[in-house]
Amino acid sequence: MSTSFAQQLFQKQAGVEPVPSNHRIAQWAMSLLCILFPEKAEYRYETPDAIDHQLAALQDELVSILNATKACHSCNNQEIAEAFFAQLPEVYALLNTDIDAIVAGDPAATNSFEVVRAYPGFQAISLYRLAHALYSLHVPLIPRILTEQAHAQTGIDIHPGATIGHHFFIDHGTGIVIGETTHIGNHVKLYQGVTLGALSVAKSMANSKRHPTVEDHAVIYSGATILGGETVIGHHSIIGGNVWLTKSVAPYSTVYHRPEIKVETQIQA
Amino acid sequence: MSTSFAQQLFQKQAGVEPVPSNHRIAQWAMSLLCILFPEKAEYRYETPDAIDHQLAALQDELVSILNATKACHSCNNQEIAEAFFAQLPEVYALLNTDIDAIVAGDPAATNSFEVVRAYPGFQAISLYRLAHALYSLHVPLIPRILTEQAHAQTGIDIHPGATIGHHFFIDHGTGIVIGETTHIGNHVKLYQGVTLGALSVAKSMANSKRHPTVEDHAVIYSGATILGGETVIGHHSIIGGNVWLTKSVAPYSTVYHRPEIKVETQIQA
Amino acid sequence: MSTSFAQQLFQKQAGVEPVPSNHRIAQWAMSLLCILFPEKAEYRYETPDAIDHQLAALQDELVSILNATKACHSCNNQEIAEAFFAQLPEVYALLNTDIDAIVAGDPAATNSFEVVRAYPGFQAISLYRLAHALYSLHVPLIPRILTEQAHAQTGIDIHPGATIGHHFFIDHGTGIVIGETTHIGNHVKLYQGVTLGALSVAKSMANSKRHPTVEDHAVIYSGATILGGETVIGHHSIIGGNVWLTKSVAPYSTVYHRPEIKVETQIQA
Amino acid sequence: MSTSFAQQLFQKQAGVEPVPSNHRIAQWAMSLLCILFPEKAEYRYETPDAIDHQLAALQDELVSILNATKACHSCNNQEIAEAFFAQLPEVYALLNTDIDAIVAGDPAATNSFEVVRAYPGFQAISLYRLAHALYSLHVPLIPRILTEQAHAQTGIDIHPGATIGHHFFIDHGTGIVIGETTHIGNHVKLYQGVTLGALSVAKSMANSKRHPTVEDHAVIYSGATILGGETVIGHHSIIGGNVWLTKSVAPYSTVYHRPEIKVETQIQA
Amino acid sequence: MSTSFAQQLFQKQAGVEPVPSNHRIAQWAMSLLCILFPEKAEYRYETPDAIDHQLAALQDELVSILNATKACHSCNNQEIAEAFFAQLPEVYALLNTDIDAIVAGDPAATNSFEVVRAYPGFQAISLYRLAHALYSLHVPLIPRILTEQAHAQTGIDIHPGATIGHHFFIDHGTGIVIGETTHIGNHVKLYQGVTLGALSVAKSMANSKRHPTVEDHAVIYSGATILGGETVIGHHSIIGGNVWLTKSVAPYSTVYHRPEIKVETQIQA
Amino acid sequence: MSTSFAQQLFQKQAGVEPVPSNHRIAQWAMSLLCILFPEKAEYRYETPDAIDHQLAALQDELVSILNATKACHSCNNQEIAEAFFAQLPEVYALLNTDIDAIVAGDPAATNSFEVVRAYPGFQAISLYRLAHALYSLHVPLIPRILTEQAHAQTGIDIHPGATIGHHFFIDHGTGIVIGETTHIGNHVKLYQGVTLGALSVAKSMANSKRHPTVEDHAVIYSGATILGGETVIGHHSIIGGNVWLTKSVAPYSTVYHRPEIKVETQIQA
Repeated sequence: MSTSFAQQLFQKQAGVEPVPSNHRIAQWAMSLLCILFPEKAEYRYETPDAIDHQLAALQDELVSILNATKACHSCNNQEIAEAFFAQLPEVYALLNTDIDAIVAGDPAATNSFEVVRAYPGFQAISLYRLAHALYSLHVPLIPRILTEQAHAQTGIDIHPGATIGHHFFIDHGTGIVIGETTHIGNHVKLYQGVTLGALSVAKSMANSKRHPTVEDHAVIYSGATILGGETVIGHHSIIGGNVWLTKSVAPYSTVYHRPEIKVETQIQA
Repeated sequence: MSTSFAQQLFQKQAGVEPVPSNHRIAQWAMSLLCILFPEKAEYRYETPDAIDHQLAALQDELVSILNATKACHSCNNQEIAEAFFAQLPEVYALLNTDIDAIVAGDPAATNSFEVVRAYPGFQAISLYRLAHALYSLHVPLIPRILTEQAHAQTGIDIHPGATIGHHFFIDHGTGIVIGETTHIGNHVKLYQGVTLGALSVAKSMANSKRHPTVEDHAVIYSGATILGGETVIGHHSIIGGNVWLTKSVAPYSTVYHRPEIKVETQIQA
Repeated sequence: MSTSFAQQLFQKQAGVEPVPSNHRIAQWAMSLLCILFPEKAEYRYETPDAIDHQLAALQDELVSILNATKACHSCNNQEIAEAFFAQLPEVYALLNTDIDAIVAGDPAATNSFEVVRAYPGFQAISLYRLAHALYSLHVPLIPRILTEQAHAQTGIDIHPGATIGHHFFIDHGTGIVIGETTHIGNHVKLYQGVTLGALSVAKSMANSKRHPTVEDHAVIYSGATILGGETVIGHHSIIGGNVWLTKSVAPYSTVYHRPEIKVETQIQA
Repeated sequence: MSTSFAQQLFQKQAGVEPVPSNHRIAQWAMSLLCILFPEKAEYRYETPDAIDHQLAALQDELVSILNATKACHSCNNQEIAEAFFAQLPEVYALLNTDIDAIVAGDPAATNSFEVVRAYPGFQAISLYRLAHALYSLHVPLIPRILTEQAHAQTGIDIHPGATIGHHFFIDHGTGIVIGETTHIGNHVKLYQGVTLGALSVAKSMANSKRHPTVEDHAVIYSGATILGGETVIGHHSIIGGNVWLTKSVAPYSTVYHRPEIKVETQIQA
Repeated sequence: MSTSFAQQLFQKQAGVEPVPSNHRIAQWAMSLLCILFPEKAEYRYETPDAIDHQLAALQDELVSILNATKACHSCNNQEIAEAFFAQLPEVYALLNTDIDAIVAGDPAATNSFEVVRAYPGFQAISLYRLAHALYSLHVPLIPRILTEQAHAQTGIDIHPGATIGHHFFIDHGTGIVIGETTHIGNHVKLYQGVTLGALSVAKSMANSKRHPTVEDHAVIYSGATILGGETVIGHHSIIGGNVWLTKSVAPYSTVYHRPEIKVETQIQA
Repeated sequence: MSTSFAQQLFQKQAGVEPVPSNHRIAQWAMSLLCILFPEKAEYRYETPDAIDHQLAALQDELVSILNATKACHSCNNQEIAEAFFAQLPEVYALLNTDIDAIVAGDPAATNSFEVVRAYPGFQAISLYRLAHALYSLHVPLIPRILTEQAHAQTGIDIHPGATIGHHFFIDHGTGIVIGETTHIGNHVKLYQGVTLGALSVAKSMANSKRHPTVEDHAVIYSGATILGGETVIGHHSIIGGNVWLTKSVAPYSTVYHRPEIKVETQIQA
């Protein structure tokens, strides 16, 4: 008696394996970040043990999320979760260097509290670093859901496959795109609207390095577009705003674009 | 006894007709998308009939939302809702072509599940397609509230009045703007930061075609700006990143912008 | 017995003073905006007195939020909250000029209801104007949390320190960045992706004017970048899309950028 | 590494089949009652069709609840749900007689609205009648969860197995207990604290009639206790407050208990 | 096309005037009690003014609830709400005497905090006193919804029409019923299961005094039933547990019931 | 400027120390019961370790609740929480005997799942057992808040100070009152409306045994009232319904009350 449209939807539904909701995955990450950064939390732990217990509970919750994600039938989710939490102190140390970089680099930043609570750059980097650790452990889907969460909140789209060194600085950030095979060194600064992308987007390139390499201490100003898997921004280089770059530049380079503009001023009679 | 400010606010309030909250409207759309795309849902329907019943209930809810939107006193909301749900299989078919386009076009996309759950492009297109169907039925306000919902979540701003063909591909998407009178053909690809806008924004132009036409199989790379109601991007054309275009280009054209950049490399002593 | 990582987190936690959650701060602002703009609210007040009482309650809530924000031990929060609410009628009047500017300036805007409920520009400006009033009263942290809320929702990043005149118009808005020491006059229009930024971001410049001045009736089209604290856009000037500008322009100027593009059209045999 | 207590709990957990939460079951029943009795609802349906669709959706939800209740592997849940909803008009008619009985019987009741919204008797009877219909269809667990919901809200404990005729009146109701095999006729009135119970509670009696029969038009005042499966309260009988009865009484009987009380009054000098 | 059952429900719905939900009414009362008794609240007010503002806002909310309760078209809801809040200090003073009575009268009560937070007697009395003040102002429906809220939470059913003096003490309380026309003096104590009811429940008696009078300093132990509008329990009387009383007793009386019980002790061989 | 009433409330507020909300305390207990009884939970733990971690987290939460309860400044809350959780396996074992007793004793009980999910007796006993363990550790306020939670849900009022042996059976339960100094042995059964109370309620008796002792295997039927600290119900005794008892009875006694009732049957002409 049902319509053929309902039958079509019903049949399709059968083939869709369940995955925990984006909300549940985001809650897990937010809980984890609230332990690492009490600036985000309304709750204070009474003892160090209490922190350990909560970390253990979040490790269990990760196992549960992974088990419920049917995309990976052969994964050893206990081992993955253990490995992830074993890396957490290192991720935490990296995130603290990012906070330092933002406080040091933005004249408007008054202190680290403000950075943790109100800087989209830190929000995006912190979710990326969690996602990247999971990605490195070959967890399917979840890393991407986490970085898309960051993208929705901040407009900063970092693929979990990208590798990013310490003291990473993002300011404003809206419109930043960092592709899957990008390598970013230490002490790199990116401003809003920067794309680190691919020259070609042929599906056949899925397993090759398609996105640039940015070496240590490089600064890339707003709106710059840097494309291609073989493009290397040498260390200590400065890429000016709106620059379009598809070739490598040597270390200590300054690249800029002086677009000719025309100014016509109307005489007011 | 009340302050004159309160009296001012009170008087203004009297003239504001109620409209269902953005939240209620978004919930309705989300419920509908969860039926169409079980990848988004935590719930599985037991029978095709159950899907039909839920669609019927969402049609009733649409009537209720439209009745509560006092902007349109003369609308036949029962007929509008019926017409909208009659178009739903077609909208669904279109959205499936969009998923196919994203899976085929993005080397980083692993499967359609990931696209439905974690791709902002699909999120924006799916809300746009619902909004456009309502816009075509002359529903006031609601379509715009839906696409603004998508804009807030994804940074992709598609006016519900735009017409867009099948197999529409958006990647990353932050900063994309697609104006009210834009026509987009089939198999078109847009990257982040693309504007399809108006040359002039005089209020007097409200009823004329102010935004471009993009023909089938065109690809427009990140940051390109294409303006004007008479501007036509011919089919199979490729518009390079950051191109600024206010005139038509013939089919099979490649348009690019080779901005002169200066590279100065500092010699390290 | 606890791990050294937990001990590290526990020690850090001790030094972090509590601040009300971003959620609570955003709720306060949203409640205030719902009184000012009943288009946003599902509730109508029965009398002007009821509006006065609700404003008084929100003033108390602001005192409570400020008291709970330990960043400012010496602030007289009662006086700050009083001063803020004393400015509210003026803020309201300014916001109404912004609505007028959007309705007048966007051919797609049908009426002020739509602007209040569905325009990201108005959403960002209204939170900015509240935040700026608090910033002017030297309230720490809260102003920045409010404007970051707007940034997350709209992609428009206005620093609470910027000063902005009446009839401010933003369309689409994703990617707009307006720096801390920017001065914007009356009747100014900004489109998506415009940056009003600093030429240099040295931390030592924190207390100097680092961002541009935009005089009355200027229009700045999408993607334009204007940098530097001494850069002045003269009144009635028009800055074209994608223009990169680090120097002042006289009143009544038109600045544009005619990038050379190459068009190659493939002949189809 | 885990404690033996945790291992014990873990092993036990494995044997516990999932059943939908009490909350979900109660929500289903509340949604159903809100359709039947708009006095409880904040929502008005726009058309009769919308009511039909909502009933259909609640029938689907019942199938889903039954399918998720693993206690009954062989049940045909589609048929059960259909049979339940087929009985709904009859249940509704009965509940309307109950409302009539309460309005007619309680001097304090001003109208049927008050009865539906604020009378615990009606709350308990309405959940019982839904539960009884499910019980009659041999649904496990759910009926009992529904009547326990009523018990928690009202202090009235009616076993879903009891049979109760039309025009059933309960006033105040706290402490009423009506056992599984009770038969109650039409136009019966019960006051608070009445027990219709078993004389013996041997487990072996699980399948025999253990609770009384109360014939039409009987009235049982507060605190009366009537026990035993063979005890019949004849029609039109009145059982006085606090009476303890384990034998049948003929129709048109009045049973009362005149406990001797002693009154000692202290003379005040 | 809709079923006749849906049509029947649809027609009935049309005649049901909206009344704010029980939940909204209960929230209003709970907010009021949280101001009066900070033991219940998680929030502390920063200034006395803040308390005044919150009371004013709750007075507005009462007007809004009354306006939305269509049962009373001719009521002057502004005046009613004013009158109610004018009585609040008196209600508060009465409730403080009730707390004193409970602390003084219950050996298990350790302090007033415990009474306010964990004593069902105080919960029931506090909602009753609010409801009675509204009842005295001829507000329809709302008083009864408030006392039924208390009944559901505590098993104590006090009709809002009853009049009750100061220092009222209820312990445990489950099953207490106090009828509409009951008069209770000062310093009265009631234990669980006490009924102060009507001898006859003929609808024709709706406007007459049907329930007892209990004079000052009377104590009524658990399970006692006292019936009839002319029944007066003289001051300083003590009514023993389970007593059934339908006649007046003089002041300083002690009434008890020595039911004969049989004790048979089985000899264990 | 504030009213004197507000000033009065403000001054009172200052003296009220904060205590975590009843809701938070109830959530803690419910989380604990969901681990012990997966019948109540929607979640399954993946490993025994995960259960241990969750128990540890709930122990931390108890410390936090106790620390926030300012009533006990000198308590060592870490030790109390440890001691409580050390007792948990024993509490769990006791609760399992209670489930067994209910399944064995109620002909209507089909299995232990039903008892855990839908029996008010078990709900009340389980909260009582948690509360009693805390009471035994001299925790203020929290135990009473827990048992009052149970009272509100079930109408069963067990003071946390009472001591109760294993295999405790309560059926229906509404109106049961068990006083602070009651001792109840093993295998005891209580039906609805039973009071185990004090003969006198003089405040001076706060530290003496005021409530009865009920020995092993006693059964007390509905509505019985047993009073006095020296009253002992000997083991294997049966106390009939509505019996009023203020003296001890020997083991193996049967106590009943055969109230004389009058039956008048009206002849129908």
